[in-house]
Amino acid sequence: MSDDADSNASFLHLTTDIGRIKADILALADIGRNDRDRGIYRMAFTDEDMAGKRWLLSRIDEADLISSSDGAANISGILKGRTDRPRIYVGSHIDTVPCAGMLDGTLGIIVGLECLRVLRQAGIVPECTIELIAFSDEEGRFGGTFGSEAFTGSLIPDKLLNARDLSGVRLEDAMLGQGFDPMKALEARRSPDEIAAYFELHIEQGPILDQQQLQVGIVESITGLQSWSVRLDGEANHAGTTPMDYRKDAFMGLADFAHELPRILDENGGEYSRATIGKAEILPGAPNSVPGAVEFSLDFRDPSSDTLGELSLAFQRALAAISRRRGLKFDFNIQGEIQPVPSAPELVDLLQAEADRLGLRSRRMLSGAAHDAQLVGQIAPAAMIFVPSKGGMSHSPAEWTAWEDIHAGANLLLAALLCRSTRLSQD
Amino acid sequence: MSDDADSNASFLHLTTDIGRIKADILALADIGRNDRDRGIYRMAFTDEDMAGKRWLLSRIDEADLISSSDGAANISGILKGRTDRPRIYVGSHIDTVPCAGMLDGTLGIIVGLECLRVLRQAGIVPECTIELIAFSDEEGRFGGTFGSEAFTGSLIPDKLLNARDLSGVRLEDAMLGQGFDPMKALEARRSPDEIAAYFELHIEQGPILDQQQLQVGIVESITGLQSWSVRLDGEANHAGTTPMDYRKDAFMGLADFAHELPRILDENGGEYSRATIGKAEILPGAPNSVPGAVEFSLDFRDPSSDTLGELSLAFQRALAAISRRRGLKFDFNIQGEIQPVPSAPELVDLLQAEADRLGLRSRRMLSGAAHDAQLVGQIAPAAMIFVPSKGGMSHSPAEWTAWEDIHAGANLLLAALLCRSTRLSQD
Repeated sequence: MSDDADSNASFLHLTTDIGRIKADILALADIGRNDRDRGIYRMAFTDEDMAGKRWLLSRIDEADLISSSDGAANISGILKGRTDRPRIYVGSHIDTVPCAGMLDGTLGIIVGLECLRVLRQAGIVPECTIELIAFSDEEGRFGGTFGSEAFTGSLIPDKLLNARDLSGVRLEDAMLGQGFDPMKALEARRSPDEIAAYFELHIEQGPILDQQQLQVGIVESITGLQSWSVRLDGEANHAGTTPMDYRKDAFMGLADFAHELPRILDENGGEYSRATIGKAEILPGAPNSVPGAVEFSLDFRDPSSDTLGELSLAFQRALAAISRRRGLKFDFNIQGEIQPVPSAPELVDLLQAEADRLGLRSRRMLSGAAHDAQLVGQIAPAAMIFVPSKGGMSHSPAEWTAWEDIHAGANLLLAALLCRSTRLSQD
Repeated sequence: MSDDADSNASFLHLTTDIGRIKADILALADIGRNDRDRGIYRMAFTDEDMAGKRWLLSRIDEADLISSSDGAANISGILKGRTDRPRIYVGSHIDTVPCAGMLDGTLGIIVGLECLRVLRQAGIVPECTIELIAFSDEEGRFGGTFGSEAFTGSLIPDKLLNARDLSGVRLEDAMLGQGFDPMKALEARRSPDEIAAYFELHIEQGPILDQQQLQVGIVESITGLQSWSVRLDGEANHAGTTPMDYRKDAFMGLADFAHELPRILDENGGEYSRATIGKAEILPGAPNSVPGAVEFSLDFRDPSSDTLGELSLAFQRALAAISRRRGLKFDFNIQGEIQPVPSAPELVDLLQAEADRLGLRSRRMLSGAAHDAQLVGQIAPAAMIFVPSKGGMSHSPAEWTAWEDIHAGANLLLAALLCRSTRLSQD
């Protein structure tokens, strides 16, 4: 690596242009923006998402890069290398949640585009091809990370045929409606040995960099998670006529469990463990009825598979003990499970070395959210750069990062690409 | 009272006929029964409710009592007395919740009818008139205790004009549809000085008599209640990217509060205090979002107004402390408030003396649920007899009381009427 860096030393003066990044961010933010709430609505396979993709293709063309798309509607911008050696990828997404801000996903694509534009304008021909790729439906209108699943070969026909959005629209129909043949998504797969490295720049979506006044975070690992649906069954009864000690109150069982979460994280988790009860439904759900049953979600995360396993056991022990004490029955289903994905150590070291060389205030950190990098990282070397989210805000029009921090992150990505695309030459 | 009892001693051999009670209960249970779930559906002002009322009117006529109804669609069966002195009332209701059992309310009317029938058949002419009254919409299709509110004069035109059921049907339209002029309900009011006493026999709807193998409960007081809607506001955040100690998790605030309930009842409540969180809505309510807000119900009850006041303060202190600790804001609205209503002591003493004379296994107790007696008791002497609910079950087809216990309760009611209707005579 140091050899490569040395051989490319003559290009290390190159920097990104924050003015162009800014203009692109603001231009794309106008596509799908709702004037009432100022939120952006570019959910996957909507007309707005398609308009965003057409805009991106035209910007790729204007940058004199090769534009293309695949069967999963992933959009690429390609800077051809001198050889057919495995490519370096720069990825993220431009689809959004409903009422989104302008940076989640989008920033990684706009910054990636700027990096390739800088290289192209400097007349650089890298040894391997560098490909910018905007993945489809990262945000989950139809489940999430659709494009990166197709890219990495983990997409299965079942998802294509059965996924629906919250309004019941089928993924298949949404794709057909936009002129895509759903089954072609299975052809978007790239072989792991075609991927030399994958970089993704993203907003942190958490408060750490902002609170600590740092410019960039170098992601060492993307957290694993388990998502449970838990049900406690007790006995519905009249809130007035049922003495407190005759009750089998399912909601009080949930409250007991919620009360145990901090203890369980302290005893069985680590520094990065998180646990959240984000959703609960009480049955029958009347103010004057003792709750007979409650169904709730439990989302817990940790970068270590072992720790996730220990947390899982501790949660089950707590639920069993509470159920015994309160005369309840409990049952749980694992609704979703994502394995933790460590970043490629050589890419983490590279990013840290370049951040230090550029004099950036940085730290190693964890990604608590899922990203396309989590999919790619399962089959090839991948790493992520985080930039600060003001107040930790995300998935909201309030999402923001200072232009200076965006510029710092963009220059770190450019530096990493310069170091990684060995034996550069100018045409 | 003992004078009255002595003067009526010659009638104390009279007893109710459990065979007739049984036949009436089973006959009325066939009106509005759903064959699929075996539940009874006679919600106020439905065709089934009207059919039940017509059946009751015909049974009153068959018993050679005077049938009548008032502007609130309350149905009466009258045994005329020798004088116009204030009447003794025996009341309850025959409307039901959806999917009801066959005893809630209905039992008090059928048993009351049997008592009047026994007196009529024995040729007894009481000094004051005894009136059986089945009140409309006790169960609350349009808010509850409609008939007894009209009877006691606490009904106001606002309820007549604005009450709607859960499907949005207006009380006014439901009454008009069944041929009633809603404004006539305001004319159903009886003056307090026309009411000598009010008796209501009802199933307990709780587990105490059944667990303690008692036959009757003598209700000393109907509990008061406050029903709150509480809102905690925190900050919605990403469940993966937000460290535990950066969170303002509104649901965890609710869990803390629920955890405090037993302590607050122990410290600030009494033997009969109850508190229930029966309903909660989490916002945004996604498994991967830290809850930004939660709205929940708090129902708390006690037979003492002072204790209700102390509980209210303690709940507010706990919510304030939890909100400070977790960085939340809290707000609450009192959605409903019912003052506790003690039974008339002389009626409680009478019922206890007669229960003892009849050799019934009895106890004094509290009603944790609201009843028509709660309305009448605010303006006139009132008391209730409870009979056991098997397993404490109510508002369900599983609602049941052994025929022997019904018979014991019916004989106690008859004995109370015999003692209370002074200077009986036979025609």
